[in-house]
Amino acid sequence: AQIDKMNRDFSSNENAFFLCSMALIIFLMQCGFAFLEAGAVRSKNTTNILIKNLLDSCIAIIGYWAIGYAFGFGKTQNSTVDLFIGSSNFFLSGFNDYPKFFFQYVFAATSATIVSGAVAERCEFATYITYCSVISSIVYPILTHWGWASGGWMKQGIKTGDINTTYLDFAGAGVVHLCGGTISFLAAWMMGPRIGRFQKEGEDPSPEIKGHSVPFAALGGFILMFGFLAFNGGSMADIVQPGEGNIVALAMVNTILCGAFAALTYLLWHYFTHGKWTLLLTINACLAGMVSSCAGCNRMEPWGSVFVGIGSGLIYLALSKIMLRYKIDDPLDAFAVHAGGGGWGLISTCIISHDGIAYGIGDAMAGKGNDRIAQTFAQLGWQLVCLSAIVIWSLLWMGPIFWFLKKINRFRVTVEVETKGLDIYKHGEAAYPLHAYGHGWDDFEQI
Amino acid sequence: AQIDKMNRDFSSNENAFFLCSMALIIFLMQCGFAFLEAGAVRSKNTTNILIKNLLDSCIAIIGYWAIGYAFGFGKTQNSTVDLFIGSSNFFLSGFNDYPKFFFQYVFAATSATIVSGAVAERCEFATYITYCSVISSIVYPILTHWGWASGGWMKQGIKTGDINTTYLDFAGAGVVHLCGGTISFLAAWMMGPRIGRFQKEGEDPSPEIKGHSVPFAALGGFILMFGFLAFNGGSMADIVQPGEGNIVALAMVNTILCGAFAALTYLLWHYFTHGKWTLLLTINACLAGMVSSCAGCNRMEPWGSVFVGIGSGLIYLALSKIMLRYKIDDPLDAFAVHAGGGGWGLISTCIISHDGIAYGIGDAMAGKGNDRIAQTFAQLGWQLVCLSAIVIWSLLWMGPIFWFLKKINRFRVTVEVETKGLDIYKHGEAAYPLHAYGHGWDDFEQI
Amino acid sequence: AQIDKMNRDFSSNENAFFLCSMALIIFLMQCGFAFLEAGAVRSKNTTNILIKNLLDSCIAIIGYWAIGYAFGFGKTQNSTVDLFIGSSNFFLSGFNDYPKFFFQYVFAATSATIVSGAVAERCEFATYITYCSVISSIVYPILTHWGWASGGWMKQGIKTGDINTTYLDFAGAGVVHLCGGTISFLAAWMMGPRIGRFQKEGEDPSPEIKGHSVPFAALGGFILMFGFLAFNGGSMADIVQPGEGNIVALAMVNTILCGAFAALTYLLWHYFTHGKWTLLLTINACLAGMVSSCAGCNRMEPWGSVFVGIGSGLIYLALSKIMLRYKIDDPLDAFAVHAGGGGWGLISTCIISHDGIAYGIGDAMAGKGNDRIAQTFAQLGWQLVCLSAIVIWSLLWMGPIFWFLKKINRFRVTVEVETKGLDIYKHGEAAYPLHAYGHGWDDFEQI
Repeated sequence: AQIDKMNRDFSSNENAFFLCSMALIIFLMQCGFAFLEAGAVRSKNTTNILIKNLLDSCIAIIGYWAIGYAFGFGKTQNSTVDLFIGSSNFFLSGFNDYPKFFFQYVFAATSATIVSGAVAERCEFATYITYCSVISSIVYPILTHWGWASGGWMKQGIKTGDINTTYLDFAGAGVVHLCGGTISFLAAWMMGPRIGRFQKEGEDPSPEIKGHSVPFAALGGFILMFGFLAFNGGSMADIVQPGEGNIVALAMVNTILCGAFAALTYLLWHYFTHGKWTLLLTINACLAGMVSSCAGCNRMEPWGSVFVGIGSGLIYLALSKIMLRYKIDDPLDAFAVHAGGGGWGLISTCIISHDGIAYGIGDAMAGKGNDRIAQTFAQLGWQLVCLSAIVIWSLLWMGPIFWFLKKINRFRVTVEVETKGLDIYKHGEAAYPLHAYGHGWDDFEQI
Repeated sequence: AQIDKMNRDFSSNENAFFLCSMALIIFLMQCGFAFLEAGAVRSKNTTNILIKNLLDSCIAIIGYWAIGYAFGFGKTQNSTVDLFIGSSNFFLSGFNDYPKFFFQYVFAATSATIVSGAVAERCEFATYITYCSVISSIVYPILTHWGWASGGWMKQGIKTGDINTTYLDFAGAGVVHLCGGTISFLAAWMMGPRIGRFQKEGEDPSPEIKGHSVPFAALGGFILMFGFLAFNGGSMADIVQPGEGNIVALAMVNTILCGAFAALTYLLWHYFTHGKWTLLLTINACLAGMVSSCAGCNRMEPWGSVFVGIGSGLIYLALSKIMLRYKIDDPLDAFAVHAGGGGWGLISTCIISHDGIAYGIGDAMAGKGNDRIAQTFAQLGWQLVCLSAIVIWSLLWMGPIFWFLKKINRFRVTVEVETKGLDIYKHGEAAYPLHAYGHGWDDFEQI
Repeated sequence: AQIDKMNRDFSSNENAFFLCSMALIIFLMQCGFAFLEAGAVRSKNTTNILIKNLLDSCIAIIGYWAIGYAFGFGKTQNSTVDLFIGSSNFFLSGFNDYPKFFFQYVFAATSATIVSGAVAERCEFATYITYCSVISSIVYPILTHWGWASGGWMKQGIKTGDINTTYLDFAGAGVVHLCGGTISFLAAWMMGPRIGRFQKEGEDPSPEIKGHSVPFAALGGFILMFGFLAFNGGSMADIVQPGEGNIVALAMVNTILCGAFAALTYLLWHYFTHGKWTLLLTINACLAGMVSSCAGCNRMEPWGSVFVGIGSGLIYLALSKIMLRYKIDDPLDAFAVHAGGGGWGLISTCIISHDGIAYGIGDAMAGKGNDRIAQTFAQLGWQLVCLSAIVIWSLLWMGPIFWFLKKINRFRVTVEVETKGLDIYKHGEAAYPLHAYGHGWDDFEQI
């Protein structure tokens, strides 16, 4: 009895400590997104993008505390309702599993923050506040209920005879990144490109709109890589059962491997086609690789990361080209990174992870029979159903909202504000006030 | 026996791990303060403010190792002396609880670093070294003895009949932030405003002196938010007894909630009065909210954070206005953030935390009798005594020191140095040397 | 039995958690190096230095996964071979101790990243990729086998009669920093100084080449200090046996103490000779102090850090002067910081750590006999053998490789590229594109 009690106390404290420390680092990803995006916009819109990322954390904690967690993980008596939504613990009433709440909150904040890159340099503040609130309090939480709560319909999957499917998404490739990436696409498409981004027919090609600070973008990239390791490792959410610590480390190793293979794939492709070693796009490719590892980093041998990583580098490449072809202006490639990486993660985990299609085919080729092949393809099928559901759900919510905001003229800033920059007009704060520079030491030779 | 030994070994290792990892993150708050302040000064004083924050860590570790820890937590035989000061373990002799020392050190370093913002752009280096040493080695450690060591007089409180008071300050709203904020006020007031900050009578209003980099200020803000979560969660200092992990997470949740409510309160007020969405002041308000959560984040339901957070946003607003009204130039609002947030935290925890006035009144209204009301108001009274003691102690130490430094003309830099900037004259290092910029690729179209 | 099982499960999970969380923070040191170096180069070479630091992580994970870990810690049957190299677990086959692998990987990545500072602003990308791959996959892993694997020859040491020596290097002062620092020296020397760095005979003295951003250098320095605490504390690699948690904290305390004493030593020397409070060199000295603590921070009383820290400050000073005297251009002082700090760490730990020469002499002076003196000097002798072996091994590998790269003209960029900057020519990405700056709000008075 003493042992059991000690085991119980130890386990709950250990998990609390684990969740809190990983959540802390994931929280810092807000800083990472802020600087990745700040570096990628022009100096005249820097304050604007920074405040958006700051407020993500603030709005998300309030929304997720009030209703988000309840929708996501609140207990529901009726099992049919429970397939779709949680319905208790609003304002955390009757609730005290704070480590879980805190961990889930930092994920909710992440899902909202992805979108700000896609609408950078032209989005109205009202629109931002609206989508941020809706995503972190409603859209994302309900998706997590579907995919991660024990009663959710995606999690339940189909169980019939030899077939036993579920939603495979360890760390949110689907519910976080595909959701955020899909909404990014929708927002970038409905908002239209930045002024001057694409030439009209017959015009000379417009010069690319470059961001104002490569170092800031790199800073954001480094912090996001740091954060992703905690994001994926921490998704274990438990580190007391035998072998769990090992899985946490495996998840981290696969995360960095996927990122590395995606980054090098893109870098080499770019070098051989353009003759330049691009930093900014390599960072994006690396992040796409890490996103794609979210789905299966806990159930994949490190060699599987070669496949997942290279694949995500290529998908990032393809999607970012397609966006340009169709003149959809996504300044941060949020769609290509998060929807591309996330979608590929959901699919590839059905192929290369333990019990995936590759293992099924391997068994068949080794003469161990075809039994697992049906199961593995059924799993892939179910995963595609879930993938589609995530995309449709995201579009169904945000489409009308964006349409309405456009209707009431609160979707995009005016031409004058966009041309002259949002910082001074909207925030009264230039990122680099001219008066604050310079000094008077003319007599020092070297300054 | 085997169980007990295992429990003991486990507990001490687990707590060591917990303290060290939280202390690591708190250590990074030095970086946060450095960039919050660097962004808020002009480019000509950037190196100066960065080196101050770097040296905080260095000076504090030496001072806290030599005498600070001994004053704070060294054992003292005489219980009367023990009410006021610790007196053993100088240079950590006869001591080996390193996790506790390391954790306490990062707090000491924080208390010293708050002040540098208030005296930015005009403080002599000698003054800085003096106050940093004195605060981290003497002023702050003795306050922690009063409030946190088992024999300290504030901790002991008053115990008589039904009344049982103590000093309620989980993570240092009083001993860290109110102390640092009070000294900030004193320093900013004694030093006088920066040249050009306030117009003289009859002159045209001076333009505001803006900082040179909003992104750096935001970077600092993000890192400080990250650090505050560890600051408040880590203050549990123990994570092996039943329920402690939950409290750690609760503290973090309350911290971010308080920050969010304070930030949004200020942001909305500013928007409705000025029509701008200010980033820099919202960061400050958010930090004030987090400071105010320090006192009771472990004993407060999340809904209590609404009260504490909104209150601290308003108090930050009020105090920063008052400073302007009286023409006291505190470039970082260190007083409003840390003294305002800290003081409000000490008071509000007596109101809204478990066993606070709100609960006492609630009992009375529910017809459960008035017994607790006396206790809760007595607690508030004692808390106000402690609050006053912290303020007076801080002023009594630093007042004469600053006066003396002023007397010997080592308090503030000369007018020429202030006008032309401290970086080149004092440090020989311009933050952005002109020679280091530019390139020669004229033939590339887009650079 | 239940107890034993629980103890086993707990221990492995606890260690996994500890290793992963420390490794995470060490991973962020890549960001620290990136910004320390980015701040120290001119704006025209900023993208170049950032991508190098990004790719360090990517190349190292692939190389270390494929062969590095196998060379370092793979099991080897033949004990003679085992003295020199590991030879199994290539591609982590037959391996599942992921926490250990992840932790070792972040160290390997660190060893490679040190060099990029020494060859900044002139190194060909091909050279960078080559040395990064070779160091992280071959040179460094084999050194760790020698020094840290149970069968390695340095670890085995000499055991004869009363003499019992081994390689004392807790966290890699030798195998990480001395190795990286030695290669830095070799690379800087073979590559020659940057154009304009040193005047030719008879010419006027060249102005110093300054870095473009003191704040970035400081940001890197802060992050590296943060990382070093995890680097040294995490090297315990185990936190379940009695007292281990305490040692982790002791290692962290000694790390910050050594850094502080080195920083203040250098700062005061610089102030008294130059009259300026230098930030950049103080950061370097602080890092040198932290490097020197790597060797013995777990076995040293805090007062020993006074000796180790001050010594490393002086050695950094001496080596950086010597490099200038011989006109070897190491823009980041990577040699002085890492080889100087690392070498001094290896030596000083034989003097001041537990069972070191100081203790031996102390015993003798206290009349307890001279027995330990022979042992302590023998240990120093063996340590010097190991130190030499690390230097020679590093030079033997990289000398021919650099010579070959020079031979095929892939060692250093052309004069035109160096003069005009690497960013645009090599990467197509200016760090601060001119078009991205400015705004059009002429009518706002204060911007």
